[in-house]
Amino acid sequence: MQELVDILNLIGVAAFSIAGALAAGRKHMDLFGVVVVGCVTALGGGTLRDVLMGSYPIFWIAAPHNFMIAALAAACTFFLARHRSTAPRSVMYVDAAGLALFTLIGFQKGYAITQLYSVGIIMGVVTGVAGGIVRDVLCNEIPLIFRREIYASSSLFGAILLALSFRFFDENIIAVSISVFSILAIRLAAIRWKLSMPVFVLDDEGRESAG
Amino acid sequence: MQELVDILNLIGVAAFSIAGALAAGRKHMDLFGVVVVGCVTALGGGTLRDVLMGSYPIFWIAAPHNFMIAALAAACTFFLARHRSTAPRSVMYVDAAGLALFTLIGFQKGYAITQLYSVGIIMGVVTGVAGGIVRDVLCNEIPLIFRREIYASSSLFGAILLALSFRFFDENIIAVSISVFSILAIRLAAIRWKLSMPVFVLDDEGRESAG
Amino acid sequence: MQELVDILNLIGVAAFSIAGALAAGRKHMDLFGVVVVGCVTALGGGTLRDVLMGSYPIFWIAAPHNFMIAALAAACTFFLARHRSTAPRSVMYVDAAGLALFTLIGFQKGYAITQLYSVGIIMGVVTGVAGGIVRDVLCNEIPLIFRREIYASSSLFGAILLALSFRFFDENIIAVSISVFSILAIRLAAIRWKLSMPVFVLDDEGRESAG
Repeated sequence: MQELVDILNLIGVAAFSIAGALAAGRKHMDLFGVVVVGCVTALGGGTLRDVLMGSYPIFWIAAPHNFMIAALAAACTFFLARHRSTAPRSVMYVDAAGLALFTLIGFQKGYAITQLYSVGIIMGVVTGVAGGIVRDVLCNEIPLIFRREIYASSSLFGAILLALSFRFFDENIIAVSISVFSILAIRLAAIRWKLSMPVFVLDDEGRESAG
Repeated sequence: MQELVDILNLIGVAAFSIAGALAAGRKHMDLFGVVVVGCVTALGGGTLRDVLMGSYPIFWIAAPHNFMIAALAAACTFFLARHRSTAPRSVMYVDAAGLALFTLIGFQKGYAITQLYSVGIIMGVVTGVAGGIVRDVLCNEIPLIFRREIYASSSLFGAILLALSFRFFDENIIAVSISVFSILAIRLAAIRWKLSMPVFVLDDEGRESAG
Repeated sequence: MQELVDILNLIGVAAFSIAGALAAGRKHMDLFGVVVVGCVTALGGGTLRDVLMGSYPIFWIAAPHNFMIAALAAACTFFLARHRSTAPRSVMYVDAAGLALFTLIGFQKGYAITQLYSVGIIMGVVTGVAGGIVRDVLCNEIPLIFRREIYASSSLFGAILLALSFRFFDENIIAVSISVFSILAIRLAAIRWKLSMPVFVLDDEGRESAG
């Protein structure tokens, strides 16, 4: 089981790094910028989680191959995307799998350290989405996940299901799997049908506009 | 006394979160983005303070109701501001109270851990203003407090008064209160009369312009 | 030797702070903003390094004169640059020296704590460049070092040379010096002949454009 999670985790790291590298390419960054943005996207969420909880050494110092894979995936994207057309849709699917798995890993670690369901839920969402937020800040954009089709919300929903699984089903493997797959299912449905959360529209005078 | 500080602290958390949620609304974020920006504004300063000093568990993991109140205040802002006109001026007053109190709490914690007045002053200002800086970065703006009427400067001035109170008046309650109220008074005066610090104007060639 | 490093370190802190203050001036920030951006530029890299490794107390709490010098250099820049024309080129030269030295200090600390060359290299680059990245984020720019003439790459190259010096030459002073001077030499050559890394150009549809 743990081995499966480790392998899926590395797939998630690579997927997030590729997504970050493509975003950096859209901003005309050089090789170094692309690798940094790729690594930050892939490792930023887990890093913030470990720093917020004071869980040292942080995961990619304890297991540096996480860093190597993120850097390698970003560098390969840099060189390959110059010669092939990219398939952003397939990246989105792998990214959705990474989101689901990172949420699980973050919840587990947050709950294991504090024994608080609330902190587990927060750390699940932080691990899933913080890397993408920092990516967009480095690319000088308003973070996409604050405005895009249901993304972080699927992570939050799944983290709450995970808390219920841990609380009422004794970490039962089926309940945990259902929670993780629900993140994937919601995210894929949101991509497929372009589902969105309600948006808060204030104009510059602070009054709500017609939008 | 400590109970009073705790209650005032929660009022400050709610005020900062409302201010963050309104800023997010101006950027057309969805419910999740509004809640995240609200929480970051309210909790970011104290989080950075605790991480910089390695003071674990950080305050909102030790006392998760801080997080709940920030999230709740931002969510209520999201739903209520759609149906009522907001009164930004009243938020500014509560925000000023939060700034004064957060500076006090940050100074106390920084000084208690390091026994250094300089670190106490830095941590007071960090606790007071860092949340607002991260809010503006997430909203893709140059942080307002770097350019607005005296804001951070009032926090810095009050933190220096606090250091003097601790050094020469033995943490006397009256001296501490005067320090905290001076932050509030300066901030309210700056709002009322639109007072500003001198601004540094360089044009793109690095030469000072006429402005 | 350690005394020489300490003195050079303080020169690097001052140079980075001046560079940050000038960037803040170009954004019309007030005195407080200029000092904060100066301090973040000068101390941000080392702070991130210490937080990532959980190395508490972080360096400018252990040695507050680092903070004082950064704040003083930024404040002097604020007042002096109003009356004199600045010489950005001389700042770039001192900045290059700071980059070389910060890379060395970061590598040493990262390697000393983890005994891993890979972490040493990462921490060398983080210490050298992270401050400048945060400076550009606060100024609402895409970080310059992701696009400018070889900057971070010279830090990365020097950090790899440092790892080789530690591994194969037993921390020999000459090998270490060559590594540090190679950073300086590459950076100065990049400034002189405007050398750049290859850039990754994707247009908004995710396809590589002609550029």
